[in-house]
Amino acid sequence: MLGSTHGTLTTDSRRARVIACGEQPGPAVHGRPADVDDLDVGGRPLYTDVPDLDRFFRPESVAVIGASDAEGRPNTGITRQLIDWAGRVGARLHPVHPTRPAVFGIPCVTSVADLPEQVDLAVLLVADPLPVIEQLAEAKVKFAVVFASGFAETGEEGAAAQERLAAAVAESGIRLLGPNTNLNAFSSFREDLEGPGIALITQSGHQGRPVYALQELGIRLTHWAPTGNEADLETADFLSYFAERPEVGAIACYVEGLKDGRSFLLAADRAARRKVPVVAVKVGRTETGARTAASHTGKLTGADAVVDAAMRQYGVIRVDGLDELQDTAALLARARPPRAEGVVVYSISGGTGAHFADLATEAGLRLPTLSQAKQDELHQWIPEFLSVANPVDNGGHPVGDWRGRKIIDAILADPSVGVLICPVTGPFPPLSDRLVQDLVDAAEQTDKLVCVVWGSPVGTEPAYREVLLGSSRVATFRTVGNCINAVRAYLDHHRFVSGYRSPFDEAPRTPSPSFRKAQALMRPGQQLSEHAAKQLLRAYGIRVPREQLVTSAAAAVRAAGLVGYPVVMKASGARIAHKTELGLVRIGLTSASQVRDAYRELTDIARYEDVTLDGVLVCQMVERGVEMVVGAVHDELFGPTVTVGLGGVLVEVLRDTAVRVPPFGEEQARDMLAELRGRALLDGVRGRPPADLDALVEVVLRVQRMVVELGDELAELDVNPLMVLPRGQGAVALDALVVCR
Amino acid sequence: MLGSTHGTLTTDSRRARVIACGEQPGPAVHGRPADVDDLDVGGRPLYTDVPDLDRFFRPESVAVIGASDAEGRPNTGITRQLIDWAGRVGARLHPVHPTRPAVFGIPCVTSVADLPEQVDLAVLLVADPLPVIEQLAEAKVKFAVVFASGFAETGEEGAAAQERLAAAVAESGIRLLGPNTNLNAFSSFREDLEGPGIALITQSGHQGRPVYALQELGIRLTHWAPTGNEADLETADFLSYFAERPEVGAIACYVEGLKDGRSFLLAADRAARRKVPVVAVKVGRTETGARTAASHTGKLTGADAVVDAAMRQYGVIRVDGLDELQDTAALLARARPPRAEGVVVYSISGGTGAHFADLATEAGLRLPTLSQAKQDELHQWIPEFLSVANPVDNGGHPVGDWRGRKIIDAILADPSVGVLICPVTGPFPPLSDRLVQDLVDAAEQTDKLVCVVWGSPVGTEPAYREVLLGSSRVATFRTVGNCINAVRAYLDHHRFVSGYRSPFDEAPRTPSPSFRKAQALMRPGQQLSEHAAKQLLRAYGIRVPREQLVTSAAAAVRAAGLVGYPVVMKASGARIAHKTELGLVRIGLTSASQVRDAYRELTDIARYEDVTLDGVLVCQMVERGVEMVVGAVHDELFGPTVTVGLGGVLVEVLRDTAVRVPPFGEEQARDMLAELRGRALLDGVRGRPPADLDALVEVVLRVQRMVVELGDELAELDVNPLMVLPRGQGAVALDALVVCR
Repeated sequence: MLGSTHGTLTTDSRRARVIACGEQPGPAVHGRPADVDDLDVGGRPLYTDVPDLDRFFRPESVAVIGASDAEGRPNTGITRQLIDWAGRVGARLHPVHPTRPAVFGIPCVTSVADLPEQVDLAVLLVADPLPVIEQLAEAKVKFAVVFASGFAETGEEGAAAQERLAAAVAESGIRLLGPNTNLNAFSSFREDLEGPGIALITQSGHQGRPVYALQELGIRLTHWAPTGNEADLETADFLSYFAERPEVGAIACYVEGLKDGRSFLLAADRAARRKVPVVAVKVGRTETGARTAASHTGKLTGADAVVDAAMRQYGVIRVDGLDELQDTAALLARARPPRAEGVVVYSISGGTGAHFADLATEAGLRLPTLSQAKQDELHQWIPEFLSVANPVDNGGHPVGDWRGRKIIDAILADPSVGVLICPVTGPFPPLSDRLVQDLVDAAEQTDKLVCVVWGSPVGTEPAYREVLLGSSRVATFRTVGNCINAVRAYLDHHRFVSGYRSPFDEAPRTPSPSFRKAQALMRPGQQLSEHAAKQLLRAYGIRVPREQLVTSAAAAVRAAGLVGYPVVMKASGARIAHKTELGLVRIGLTSASQVRDAYRELTDIARYEDVTLDGVLVCQMVERGVEMVVGAVHDELFGPTVTVGLGGVLVEVLRDTAVRVPPFGEEQARDMLAELRGRALLDGVRGRPPADLDALVEVVLRVQRMVVELGDELAELDVNPLMVLPRGQGAVALDALVVCR
Repeated sequence: MLGSTHGTLTTDSRRARVIACGEQPGPAVHGRPADVDDLDVGGRPLYTDVPDLDRFFRPESVAVIGASDAEGRPNTGITRQLIDWAGRVGARLHPVHPTRPAVFGIPCVTSVADLPEQVDLAVLLVADPLPVIEQLAEAKVKFAVVFASGFAETGEEGAAAQERLAAAVAESGIRLLGPNTNLNAFSSFREDLEGPGIALITQSGHQGRPVYALQELGIRLTHWAPTGNEADLETADFLSYFAERPEVGAIACYVEGLKDGRSFLLAADRAARRKVPVVAVKVGRTETGARTAASHTGKLTGADAVVDAAMRQYGVIRVDGLDELQDTAALLARARPPRAEGVVVYSISGGTGAHFADLATEAGLRLPTLSQAKQDELHQWIPEFLSVANPVDNGGHPVGDWRGRKIIDAILADPSVGVLICPVTGPFPPLSDRLVQDLVDAAEQTDKLVCVVWGSPVGTEPAYREVLLGSSRVATFRTVGNCINAVRAYLDHHRFVSGYRSPFDEAPRTPSPSFRKAQALMRPGQQLSEHAAKQLLRAYGIRVPREQLVTSAAAAVRAAGLVGYPVVMKASGARIAHKTELGLVRIGLTSASQVRDAYRELTDIARYEDVTLDGVLVCQMVERGVEMVVGAVHDELFGPTVTVGLGGVLVEVLRDTAVRVPPFGEEQARDMLAELRGRALLDGVRGRPPADLDALVEVVLRVQRMVVELGDELAELDVNPLMVLPRGQGAVALDALVVCR
């Protein structure tokens, strides 16, 4: 329901590829050079360049087109801000104005052509930037920032203007930020803060303000890219660039709409390879992604669910509120990799510890029971009657003297402990001041993560504002939920990146032998008959039942003898979608006479329902398995996706499905199954044998191969049901629906 | 996994009733007088007294047993605090000490017997309070507070000491707070704050500190009851009392363990009748409540799920973190009832509005589209190109002048709007200062709820600290999540109480005609045979299939003729739990010969499996319905509970069940069905007819009647499956498991 307010245009990824890598090589490139032939078998890129944005963020010379010092003009404030900024960073600034001799005392040139040097960056404050682009190209300007609004964010006319601007920019070789952006990239960043910081990408400048304000709490911000309408430079470009910067500890993104799904995945892949955490708000939780689809999976896979899956595949941490974005990014930017996954909750009150531990455990954090030796050690300083198994309750008093620090150090020294969380429920200065100081001091001496939840709603206490916020090693939170979620994201991130293998490295580049066979079966613009659809599956090595297509009762009886009784008979034709509901399926036929009768009935119904048949399928009957659904859906943003779900009632009523965006490997296919709420069915319930998971995973991967190779030729694919037999016996596609584009 | 750190003892509710209302009448009572015969048919109370705690919270005279002014003694600090407090509220204070002539200059009496007047409250600072209780009773002291720890919170020995203390207190007629409590009830409360406030109940004093600290943010606190170990006065007592106080706008609870489930429900019922919101943290999300149960529902209903359901039945708002407790209670205490349920999101940025609206909608808030007339009105002050449909985006500028207030007033004047939420993403003083002031001013002039999310993480800005926190009419939040959850709780609460009918008013007091029939069927300590269990169901008017119990093959054939083919045959015996797994069920038998064969096979298997049969059941076969499970589980805290779930795979794999604590009415029974994730199955999917919901609800209510009447005689009951037939055709219990206590 909610559109982007920044008018990002969703484009087919191949077209975007042409713009990004084909016609417009862009400036110098980090890493290996761009290669336009670096495409997967479906023509989608396997690599994108990292744009060199060093001179964008730190230009040595800047031209301001439309600079002004006239009172009351918006451009005046912006010009003033740029002059201040240029002074601060030591950039040379050249105002450009057709008539003014000088702006704020700085001499103007009348046009871009008259600029005294080749500038790195041009800031365009003019209402119509299009005519200026060509002049900038001639002047060999590297980067442009366009402030003007009135483009894609305003509707169709604006979108057309934006396309013209994008085309001109692509031709020019200039890299452009905007339109509909601002000066956030040239804000003043605190330079007294050390260590890794947060790089921020926001489509809306306004939504980035609270993250920017974190600097006032002592959290370093390294960059801010307000991408606006993304006519050229997009979120993915900055993501790639920031992932390569050594000073960036985490990337925080606020995304309203992604310009191109594939570019985003490639950038996220780069961040995952570089082990740089990406935390993102992506607006659109309520996007229903209503599709008009004949297939089940098409109806069941929402647009936001695809975004969610795509992010998870590359370890992008999706959060909702901006406060979560801040808290999570700040922790991830500064915390070192965990030495262990165990979390200890430490507090001066048994009640606090038990409460926090309850919520942390519920959220999936692991609170190991401390060893007896460790507990004995802690009981040197903590009375015997208090529990120190984890949570560790110190009862208050030991915190007030030298014992407090001993306890913290002893907990942090435990090899099972990676994170210490201390909820300080209410400030009681005689105890909490020393506690907090000890935590800050201890955090300086350890690689392990120390978190404090400052529970007081007041927030003016010196222990909070001076001691905790003064520490770059303690992660301080104001809410229990944000702390727990951030710690979970931290542990998840490091687990994810340490086992990360890029799926792009293993994506197929050349067609499989199946591809030619498959192409011969496709019928552009048509829905295939069940028989043809199954042949397509067979071409990709997916097992289908023994079956024959027959056009007479006698042939049906012969076929039944060949496939073996009992048989299933189904009407087959190019446009039959709901065979069961129409009564066009007969199961469990055990004799020639039943087959003959069934043939007559099916053809009668087809005539009555005015359905054109290409014959009747006589199929082997397959029972005693778990019914699944595997399908492919074309997502507007990410292209083809693969969905797997539990069949029958579960998919019907609970929409219990999992989706992935290709390319993905076997591990992700297994993760899909783990995501299903009804996954226990696959393990065997009530004495049923466990299902052949390997065969199911293999079908998912073969369907992926098929949709990637057939690409846009395939509009929809639905294997429903896929009968997954007991372990070792494989999986059989009992029915399939294929719609060609 | 997490026990209470306050050692609350869970007791059978009937026993608690005796203590609370029988042996110990307590002091003066609000409302109608206690009536020991006011019990439901199962012997559980339908009413509890409201203890008169006026003189507890505002005693005119106080004795301090164990008062001290010796340096370094903990009692000295407490004595000092009490003296200060007594001075502030004008209470007369009498130190009691066997040897000291005076404490802090106030003359001591040597014993309780020597007190110069009949005091309202005795504060016991002695290690062993038990001997003092009798003296206090003789001196006609009304209330006692016991500080000493070392009771139930320390283990078995302490629990025994606590039981002795509780017994002495019950005998004495004194009402006691503690042991293991503190002086929080006699804290200093700000008296300059007006309007309804928060009354706070916390088992752990420490965990109440952040709520208490809300006073520093201008939020009124009226009372604080730190209940400690609850040897006598418990959470429920304070809940009842606070619900009757006019100055209490909301009750905030922090509960580690409930002393008695029934008392809590009766107190929550009182709050619901009085329309006083109760917001509660209940520790124990991870309580698995592992039961050893033969029945399905027994295994599927966790202890925490029962707590959750019980709270929801009475409109208690359960939250997790203390920050949520604060934010939700503060909003509910001060906001007036909503005039409409519509929420408008208003911001100075389209991005902010769209983002917030996305999250609010996802969370279930309703954002109505404003009427065209209203939009036209808003466009008087807001540029045409900005969307004002809801969210309302003002684009920033109108906020800076007189238009800002006009816009807010126009939104609030809309009859579809009950709540205005303004997320202020980042402070930009030229705009946000005026915006915030306008919101505060407008909130003074309206009954409607105005919320601000102050998005800056800094929190020292004057607009936040002085203007927003200075307003008692604007609800200010620091996180998006807490705001959305609190607003949802606010709307839910008022919807709930406006339609509230107390189930206690309609609970049965006298046995139904079914009860005597049912009792005759019960076999103490035994599991009934399927046939006997079904007779029990029939006694309560629950339909079972036509069936006969037979003991010969010939009788089986005769029975089949009577019930009508096809039939189902099942082995029947007193201790057969998993008939299907053992192969002791045959379905779809269509002829006499099949019946004869089945009889032989079933009896053979029974012999082989060493199962004692009382015969074989020949049952009518019932198909074409939705399989459900209805059962009863005895919960340690709340007594008998009723669970309903979807049968077959859904209950097996997804544990898709809903539970309620009796008494509950038809509406709650319908709500149970609405809670099921697979509820769509009942509405009919894939062309199946909708199920007979009325019949299902009736079965749930009849099962409730049964478990309430049979009470502790019934250990477990499981109707599985209950086949719910198409609408108008009823529901049939195909199998039942009954375990007698």
